[in-house]
Amino acid sequence: MSQPPLRLGIAGLGTVGMGVVRILRQHPELIEARTGRPVTLSAVSARARDKDRGVSLASYGWEDDPVALATRDDVDVFVELIGGDSGPARDAVEAAIAAGKHVVTANKALLALHGQALAEQAEAAGRALRYEAAVAGGIPVIKSLGEGLAGNEITRVMGVMNGTCNYILTRMESAGLTYEAAFAEADGLGYLEADPQLDVGGIDAAHKLAILAALAFGTKVDFAGIELEGIGRISFDDIRAAGDMGYRVKLLGVAQMTGRGLEQRMQPCLVPATSPLGLLEGGTNMVVIEGDAVGQIVLRGPGAGAGPTASAVLSDICDIARGWTGPVFGQPATTLAAANRAIAQTPAPYYLRMSLDDKPGALAKIAAVLGEAGVSIDRMRQYGRHDTAAPVLIVTHKTTPAALSGALEAMGSTGVLATDPVALRIEEV
Amino acid sequence: MSQPPLRLGIAGLGTVGMGVVRILRQHPELIEARTGRPVTLSAVSARARDKDRGVSLASYGWEDDPVALATRDDVDVFVELIGGDSGPARDAVEAAIAAGKHVVTANKALLALHGQALAEQAEAAGRALRYEAAVAGGIPVIKSLGEGLAGNEITRVMGVMNGTCNYILTRMESAGLTYEAAFAEADGLGYLEADPQLDVGGIDAAHKLAILAALAFGTKVDFAGIELEGIGRISFDDIRAAGDMGYRVKLLGVAQMTGRGLEQRMQPCLVPATSPLGLLEGGTNMVVIEGDAVGQIVLRGPGAGAGPTASAVLSDICDIARGWTGPVFGQPATTLAAANRAIAQTPAPYYLRMSLDDKPGALAKIAAVLGEAGVSIDRMRQYGRHDTAAPVLIVTHKTTPAALSGALEAMGSTGVLATDPVALRIEEV
Repeated sequence: MSQPPLRLGIAGLGTVGMGVVRILRQHPELIEARTGRPVTLSAVSARARDKDRGVSLASYGWEDDPVALATRDDVDVFVELIGGDSGPARDAVEAAIAAGKHVVTANKALLALHGQALAEQAEAAGRALRYEAAVAGGIPVIKSLGEGLAGNEITRVMGVMNGTCNYILTRMESAGLTYEAAFAEADGLGYLEADPQLDVGGIDAAHKLAILAALAFGTKVDFAGIELEGIGRISFDDIRAAGDMGYRVKLLGVAQMTGRGLEQRMQPCLVPATSPLGLLEGGTNMVVIEGDAVGQIVLRGPGAGAGPTASAVLSDICDIARGWTGPVFGQPATTLAAANRAIAQTPAPYYLRMSLDDKPGALAKIAAVLGEAGVSIDRMRQYGRHDTAAPVLIVTHKTTPAALSGALEAMGSTGVLATDPVALRIEEV
Repeated sequence: MSQPPLRLGIAGLGTVGMGVVRILRQHPELIEARTGRPVTLSAVSARARDKDRGVSLASYGWEDDPVALATRDDVDVFVELIGGDSGPARDAVEAAIAAGKHVVTANKALLALHGQALAEQAEAAGRALRYEAAVAGGIPVIKSLGEGLAGNEITRVMGVMNGTCNYILTRMESAGLTYEAAFAEADGLGYLEADPQLDVGGIDAAHKLAILAALAFGTKVDFAGIELEGIGRISFDDIRAAGDMGYRVKLLGVAQMTGRGLEQRMQPCLVPATSPLGLLEGGTNMVVIEGDAVGQIVLRGPGAGAGPTASAVLSDICDIARGWTGPVFGQPATTLAAANRAIAQTPAPYYLRMSLDDKPGALAKIAAVLGEAGVSIDRMRQYGRHDTAAPVLIVTHKTTPAALSGALEAMGSTGVLATDPVALRIEEV
């Protein structure tokens, strides 16, 4: 145990940053026992020095500028918890690597947009850039995928990875709220990012999916290649109707290597109500990993919050303390293949909800149009008339997104739709 | 990529051993990309050289004696897949470490009974002894617990970790089979160990629990300290009655650090039917880990089989190829504390099933005895008379095992019990 301490500098003292500080103060012996060396905190940086954070920071150095923190002589590992894909977070991470520091970050946006360049920079410098906390909070998914399943060719990665969206969807269901009301409730509880589109637009979850896909498939991070749709168009009617058919609505990310290339989508989907994904409540995250040898592994845990996210940051710090540092995305960044984007063509059943004008033959026209487009109907329910329109639910047999789009377009020309139909993919996990 | 290859010797060419050979042949480039060096197979050992295993082994060296394999000059990592807590497996592992080899093993019995001595030997020699495949098959639980949650004080570890028991219990439920019939079915399918008590007696699952507890709590492996009960006394009546009350029966392991010491139990329990543990079917394993920072993490996946177990073996091999080797149980073996055994006293609700003589006042006597023992009743159901006895189900409020034992003893003296009562702990996970 005569190893020198590993010295940290933490930039960003919000919920997660203070969570990390608390663990370092609470468990120094535990961490030293597990890593073989003391892990100490040299200095911190944040916007407001005088803010009361509930813990005295007087014994640590202070820097107003995270770049100054990142390059201090008494810092071995720069812990970036500022957030944001550019500005001070990116500047400080680049400066840290240039100064020969290891970096631990929880910043999914930074990695999703600049991960390749940062990985090349870190690997050229022989330094670690680790990011367990960037995906699915406290769930050790980066470690499980990149190390625990290293003998597998990964075939598919899926996940519910934005707790705020899942909170909104489950509140709509449990309390019968409109999307707007559930959104307002989440906002009031402080669950939403400053730019709420990061959450409800699916962007935050897509950042995480892009990172997982790179690690899973040995491809360059390709955030722009994700087919992305948020939860804004989900209505209580859909949630209730899906429930009637035995499903729940989740914002689900899927990255899948196909013969045609890499499919990446983040979109609201229906999943069986009694499947592991269907049973997820509130802010809990879940990641499903499928590999050729292992079959299917499901990981579930808290997706956000001080403790869980700090737990993930500590996992990276402990690995660095042990000297376990390797390539950023599981293999050298210069060997990662360009993601060969494939438009999503994997067939799936779809859920369709529409309102038909209350005219004779309306339903027959819809059924005919679906049949002509090669989309066959598995189950259908017509409800009693509501005003002048009749709500209809259809679950199709497996069909491709392209065939479904064709059918939806043709349905528009029938003249019997009272409103635009809603179509949601069903993922049978 | 100019690093020298990591050279393996595999002893034991059953399902798992051949699974490892297949991955090495299928994915050499993947493994080299991920570890930075080639991983090659030098030689193998098994009982029958001429057996057709579906893959030609002619290009590898052969040893009849696993000890000879373990000490070959062209072997860097000895992969022990023989099994058994003594005999050739133990001899070969000890010989490998003594010869300066790293060891990867799937042998839960060996580690549960001799883990401390082997860990001390390996660490003194500066060699790795890794065992991801020993617990919960393909689930990367050793890595998640020992590395992914290294910043946590672990408070509780739970798991359903014997697929054969879970298969028997779920078949009893789904097909209405007696324990004996389901056992015979599992036997016919080849699911049972040569000594079936390893499975249905809970011993195999308890081996795994003992390993997890050591890693979780920094204590010496203490298999003998586990309160152990198998599934042999579970009847179809209990499974059906538990289902009526909203529960399912699982062989559940729980290791928990309490103020009084370490509680370890492996016993049939009731869990809520719609909880993650309650939803487990067949051979799927699940491990639940609770830490002070992370909260609760749930890991689910295949608990056995060639592919999943080989996947776990490869995870260890890849870590060794990367040079990531550390203490066997998360911290140096010489610093592990003796497990301070605590008799299980953590309160829980209990399920009681009994048959009462069909006499006036019988139920009142039972209720009175429970009340006197300090055990209060949450729910009770009395069914119609069956022969001359009336079946009664009781779910108690939380009570300690000691109070419950007292109540069961007192119930025996009432003279109204037609048969011995069944008591099963309810774990609200």
